[in-house]
Amino acid sequence: MTEKSKPDKARLVELFRSFIDPEYVIEDAETQRPYECDGLSMYCEMPLIVVLPDTVEQVQRVLQICHQQGVPVVARGAGTGLCAGAMPHAEGVVLSLAKFNRILAIDPLARTARVQPGVRNLAITEAAAEHGLYYGPDPSSQIACTIGGNVAENSGGVHCLKYGLTVHNILSVEMLSVEGEKLSIGSQGLDSCGMDLMALITGSEGLLGIVTEVTVKLLPQPEKAQVVMAAFDSVQKAGDAVGGIISRGIIPAGLEMMDTYAISAAEDFAKAGYPKGAQALLLCEVDGTAEEVQEHIAQVESLFASFGATSIRTSQSEAERALLWKGRKSAFPAVGRISPDYYCMDGTIPRGQLAHVLTEMQRMSDEYQLRVANVFHAGDGNLHPLILFDANVPGEFERTEEFGGRILELCVEVGGCITGEHGVGIEKIRQMPIQFNAQELRQFNAIKDAFDPAGTLNPGKGVPTLRHCQEHRALETRPMPATPDTTGAA
Amino acid sequence: MTEKSKPDKARLVELFRSFIDPEYVIEDAETQRPYECDGLSMYCEMPLIVVLPDTVEQVQRVLQICHQQGVPVVARGAGTGLCAGAMPHAEGVVLSLAKFNRILAIDPLARTARVQPGVRNLAITEAAAEHGLYYGPDPSSQIACTIGGNVAENSGGVHCLKYGLTVHNILSVEMLSVEGEKLSIGSQGLDSCGMDLMALITGSEGLLGIVTEVTVKLLPQPEKAQVVMAAFDSVQKAGDAVGGIISRGIIPAGLEMMDTYAISAAEDFAKAGYPKGAQALLLCEVDGTAEEVQEHIAQVESLFASFGATSIRTSQSEAERALLWKGRKSAFPAVGRISPDYYCMDGTIPRGQLAHVLTEMQRMSDEYQLRVANVFHAGDGNLHPLILFDANVPGEFERTEEFGGRILELCVEVGGCITGEHGVGIEKIRQMPIQFNAQELRQFNAIKDAFDPAGTLNPGKGVPTLRHCQEHRALETRPMPATPDTTGAA
Repeated sequence: MTEKSKPDKARLVELFRSFIDPEYVIEDAETQRPYECDGLSMYCEMPLIVVLPDTVEQVQRVLQICHQQGVPVVARGAGTGLCAGAMPHAEGVVLSLAKFNRILAIDPLARTARVQPGVRNLAITEAAAEHGLYYGPDPSSQIACTIGGNVAENSGGVHCLKYGLTVHNILSVEMLSVEGEKLSIGSQGLDSCGMDLMALITGSEGLLGIVTEVTVKLLPQPEKAQVVMAAFDSVQKAGDAVGGIISRGIIPAGLEMMDTYAISAAEDFAKAGYPKGAQALLLCEVDGTAEEVQEHIAQVESLFASFGATSIRTSQSEAERALLWKGRKSAFPAVGRISPDYYCMDGTIPRGQLAHVLTEMQRMSDEYQLRVANVFHAGDGNLHPLILFDANVPGEFERTEEFGGRILELCVEVGGCITGEHGVGIEKIRQMPIQFNAQELRQFNAIKDAFDPAGTLNPGKGVPTLRHCQEHRALETRPMPATPDTTGAA
Repeated sequence: MTEKSKPDKARLVELFRSFIDPEYVIEDAETQRPYECDGLSMYCEMPLIVVLPDTVEQVQRVLQICHQQGVPVVARGAGTGLCAGAMPHAEGVVLSLAKFNRILAIDPLARTARVQPGVRNLAITEAAAEHGLYYGPDPSSQIACTIGGNVAENSGGVHCLKYGLTVHNILSVEMLSVEGEKLSIGSQGLDSCGMDLMALITGSEGLLGIVTEVTVKLLPQPEKAQVVMAAFDSVQKAGDAVGGIISRGIIPAGLEMMDTYAISAAEDFAKAGYPKGAQALLLCEVDGTAEEVQEHIAQVESLFASFGATSIRTSQSEAERALLWKGRKSAFPAVGRISPDYYCMDGTIPRGQLAHVLTEMQRMSDEYQLRVANVFHAGDGNLHPLILFDANVPGEFERTEEFGGRILELCVEVGGCITGEHGVGIEKIRQMPIQFNAQELRQFNAIKDAFDPAGTLNPGKGVPTLRHCQEHRALETRPMPATPDTTGAA
């Protein structure tokens, strides 16, 4: 990409530097490099300019300038996202909200925190701890990821089964429209009046506006938490046990499943005491008052036994609970040790389809000659198959991508959906026409138009344009049509 | 309104009768009369035609015809709404979903029910009871109101403090666009992919489409529930006690407050044993496992005592619990016995503002020479002031309406909002420009346009058109500008 196709760059840089500290208007490739991709490093692109404003007024002016000149704007938090939602646009501005990292207020009576979008997820919990409170959603990246990014992708985590996704844990946002005008969305109460745009904004991947402030709900720290680990000699039995717990009316704080590859890799890495021969492992955490936990843990143990668990172990101390979780939490990097590269998928299925989908995935794994490890939020049917591959073997990345697409199509087939918590971004935009009919996609486009008629906010992500959609349908005999303009190997 | 201004009526009736049982295409005034208003009977209008289709295909054809001819369509459930959201349009069709009253499936494993929009709220709970499940949101009208209406107004109820509003308890809807095309919104899982339109549709008051099917979440029946009643000699102390409970981390199943007028009226009616001299009464219900309830009830009792309760009584049996709630549940009709008419308002305020707002309302009550009784969801700050008036006294309704508007403005002033669970409809459309700035209203209009460019779905409700908004601002020195075309005394 040459300067020729970006005629405004010098003028834009000059304009931005008239009100943003020049050091934070980044135009050179070397300094821009860290912004080339998000956590899904197989989709990369260098931007025209990166800016890091530090006041809402500066963000407004950036938006006004880009709007006037038709320049794409891609908002960015910590860049930990996993769907290429924050991948730059070659002719656009990356608008980093990294400097918006202040916790503005914590109200322990209302149990809320008002924070800037660049505040890290875990920093909210740390700041709330002195009041005995914490912020619920806990993505694996919670040390690094920001609340603005969490809102953009409607992030989840292990504890979302009981406490909900980001959309269930925020009350209001302040945002700027594509023209730089201020909008207040949501309210401090349970309901908001007017049209409820809160959920629409949550998960909108920077397509509808730029969030400049978020008010999150805080939860009281539970008095007690315990985890039960159960091993099974078949995935079917473990899947049935998950259904058994949920249908019994117990809502665990987390209910996670790992398959035999993941168990073995995690155990080698974390030495958590996982039974390496098992076909499936469940971790079920219960939290609440001491009495409630005692009662539910007994029920969970007895249910696991009745579904044929080959071993059951319940944490007897906080240290033991932390150890049992350590294996799960380090499962992704642990799998990274047994393969040069892995591709983490994200799809959701009805709980009843767990065993069928896992079996079918194993069949595809044989077909594509690619191993797949499963570590996932079983309680809410949110799968995370990790496809193991080697990017240095010619053709292996393309096979991985196609396998990944097939997994997503399988999720849709059984009544599920192509994302659980990672979002659509660029990664899954080709699966959107499988999930949604033409009228639904037209409706998404109409809403995008209602916020951003010129289409300069994060173009090419989240919602396929109608042209893309027709292209897809024209090509639909090929399972994964290539879109060379957005794809580049890591 | 004469036939002259509705030139298409005869032709429309003929068209509708070509595919709907002619008896259910209602054109005569006498049979139309029950559709003249919803539960807010002070806003009435006779429609052009009422239709009661009984298949989705029939609804599609009604929509297609109305869309082609530019005829307004007002969807209607049981007509129990309290914001005139279902008030007919004089030149439009009332589309009653009353015949869509089938429960299509209950899945006890997934804990969901798939129902048609005309199913009554309580009928879902009754049908789920055999599985030990129930549907959470419980508006006072739950015997009669339908789930379609609940979705349209995002209805709440006593138990919403713990279990959420309608938006928190539904998973997906099938809907028809204004052109009659089918859209699937939401998913069976925690997350949905694509733009999250679920919350946008919930509470959209029939402005964006017609819901033809709803999948709701079901909750496990709690093992136990107990209620604590506490009396206070000042509203301030009761308000502080509400804050105390919430900040302690207890989330009651319900936390209701009544003031002295309401206590007295309810006690005369229900003989629930309420202390008639008290200035404020709190009812706090806790549910969960037996152990959890025991622990939380003890904490609630001790908190109430520490905030200066003059009497505390805890239900010791299901019969006693039902009796204590009977007074609260009959408070509205009970107040109806002490005044010829009453106007039930609905606004939400931050919990910390409870005492201030109640005091200020008392001052306004003196100013307007109109009594006001308060019965409300204190836990989530959702007020229901009942203004007592006599529609036969000239000018008293107009004074009531103005007083009501002032209460809503007060809610906005203290950081709250103009509706908690009843919706905007026609009733509160004049307060929308107080709550929202011009850019926010423009955004609402853009979204309305994205679904319904011609504006034929429930026109005049929910979202003020920009013209209305400018009118409001032009007149904003007058607190309540009259809109004679939408207002008619009951």
